[in-house]
Amino acid sequence: MNVGIVGVSGAVGETLLALFERHEPETTRLQLFGSKRSAGRRVDYQGSGLQVQEFGVERVSDCEVLFLCVSGDFAKKYARELAKRSIVIDNSSALRYDEDVPLLVAPVNAAAYCGQRLLANANCSTAVALMALAPLEALAGIESVQLATYQAASGAGRPAMDELVEKTSGFMGYGVDDTSAHFRHNLAYNVIPQIDQFQENGYTKEEMKLVWELQKIMQRPDIKVSATCVRVPTLRSHAEAITVRLRRAVSLAEVREAWGHGLSRGPGQDAGSGGLRVVDEPGEYLYPMPLHSSGQYAVEVGRLRHNLVYGDSGLDFFVSGDQLLRGAALNAYEIYCLTQGRAFPSAV
Amino acid sequence: MNVGIVGVSGAVGETLLALFERHEPETTRLQLFGSKRSAGRRVDYQGSGLQVQEFGVERVSDCEVLFLCVSGDFAKKYARELAKRSIVIDNSSALRYDEDVPLLVAPVNAAAYCGQRLLANANCSTAVALMALAPLEALAGIESVQLATYQAASGAGRPAMDELVEKTSGFMGYGVDDTSAHFRHNLAYNVIPQIDQFQENGYTKEEMKLVWELQKIMQRPDIKVSATCVRVPTLRSHAEAITVRLRRAVSLAEVREAWGHGLSRGPGQDAGSGGLRVVDEPGEYLYPMPLHSSGQYAVEVGRLRHNLVYGDSGLDFFVSGDQLLRGAALNAYEIYCLTQGRAFPSAV
Repeated sequence: MNVGIVGVSGAVGETLLALFERHEPETTRLQLFGSKRSAGRRVDYQGSGLQVQEFGVERVSDCEVLFLCVSGDFAKKYARELAKRSIVIDNSSALRYDEDVPLLVAPVNAAAYCGQRLLANANCSTAVALMALAPLEALAGIESVQLATYQAASGAGRPAMDELVEKTSGFMGYGVDDTSAHFRHNLAYNVIPQIDQFQENGYTKEEMKLVWELQKIMQRPDIKVSATCVRVPTLRSHAEAITVRLRRAVSLAEVREAWGHGLSRGPGQDAGSGGLRVVDEPGEYLYPMPLHSSGQYAVEVGRLRHNLVYGDSGLDFFVSGDQLLRGAALNAYEIYCLTQGRAFPSAV
Repeated sequence: MNVGIVGVSGAVGETLLALFERHEPETTRLQLFGSKRSAGRRVDYQGSGLQVQEFGVERVSDCEVLFLCVSGDFAKKYARELAKRSIVIDNSSALRYDEDVPLLVAPVNAAAYCGQRLLANANCSTAVALMALAPLEALAGIESVQLATYQAASGAGRPAMDELVEKTSGFMGYGVDDTSAHFRHNLAYNVIPQIDQFQENGYTKEEMKLVWELQKIMQRPDIKVSATCVRVPTLRSHAEAITVRLRRAVSLAEVREAWGHGLSRGPGQDAGSGGLRVVDEPGEYLYPMPLHSSGQYAVEVGRLRHNLVYGDSGLDFFVSGDQLLRGAALNAYEIYCLTQGRAFPSAV
């Protein structure tokens, strides 16, 4: 098996490489591609190293599977051409809303994959939310979803994470330093209610991605979704406070049951918790947090209770999932597992 | 005028002292009281200093107004007795739900004060939210409120703020240090979806305070309120993502108008923006943030748009307000201004 990763120097590419190192059979031949600038760089892999090659359409033509960990512009320019010869798994948002491109969160909608060669990875906050939402849709049908997110610096890349640590260590008080090379404002000891650009309706593109992608992946264009997306000074897990209105009243026990059995563990596997872990023991002060979910394959869900506005047909809960894993690289790797008929690592 | 502050060594007491230093006529005689342990300590005030005296019911008896910046247990034990001789402004939650005690956010429900001698200051996240909610209740009537909060370390006191800075500077990665003397978990680069104790219904007491206090202050026990309260690694401003369902459709222009004119600026003053500042220029990347609201009297409100679930009768917006000022000391000081028939400093 020949596999290529285009764009390995970013945080997502690095994390994807670590997943290959941990889970991939040794017979897989992995090739790394990058810009002219990064070509020639050696990257640690399985005790030795791999050299980054300059990307070119002909140069990647022997790859049976290609991961694109690069910009949406790159994907728009090359993805369809590359998909003529390779299975292409794109991490950008460029092709997510194209009708012929399945938008996948592997444990959630594996069934949407039926041999297509161009596959899109979902937005990070969408993927984390869906791990908890999809079993509820199956359980009782969702009327509406309201989300407020607590999104980590990693969503803006490795240099953004480094900047947050640096500016936090050197923090001199509010108002002393409002600059940032990676966010709209200094994120140190701050929260920023803007991720991606503003749209005409007053929502940011990140907020609208949640709307569009939840609707597409759940195949429910009628579901009403509203979100506020906020960058917070955490490093690599996105947390989300989620309110769901269901079509019928449910008990909390039913919900926990659905979360335990409502996700795919891979092609040919029994359904199971598929990368979702219920962490909900208030008495022990255990609930989802970036502190615990960072570096973990599983998305944590907890703080489950009936919503006080909607009553027994409404639920409130809190999720936290690693942005680089479920929100990006792990999801990409599991889409690849899906194309190869292999079980998902998050379900192990 | 003789004024006493009981409990001046905490972050709220310190901030209250700074407000007195800035706004109070020199003729006011300020006395500070504390525990036996802090008695004798000198505190900077107006270029010279004030000595903390040991608290005793007799010792405070010449104070016409007394601020209690101490625990709920202290308030339960002493507040009603002290109110026989002094006007008592209590910052704890102990008496907030007693029927004969007005629960006040000065610019919001000044009218609830009619000469009572025992007055309760609202919870910090309630006070910040109400500055934006009260004008909407007057505009169109509120059906329901959903809130997700981004609450700062200051809510747990000065030592908690110091711990956050220390643990963040020394952060070695997730999972290395899960300890905290002030929060349930290490808050560095983390968010914690628990503030105060869990109640039987799965909500925390902080979340239920929002329910109880919004209902009491708006005199609308029928308003449905549901909240998720989350501690985030910021220092002294609480931010909140708020969704409101109104009784009728409103335009965003109507809402901005209501925010500009819907709050009290003090007894005998015209109504105005009373400590609420609309910061809502997405094109300029301006919206409410702890970075800008910390240290400011005004609560910032922005990110206004119609909610995508509720349509034109639903609103989403984001607020950020200094927890030590509007959420505590400034509100206490303005309750005092109310008793003295003076304009509120936040409205100047």
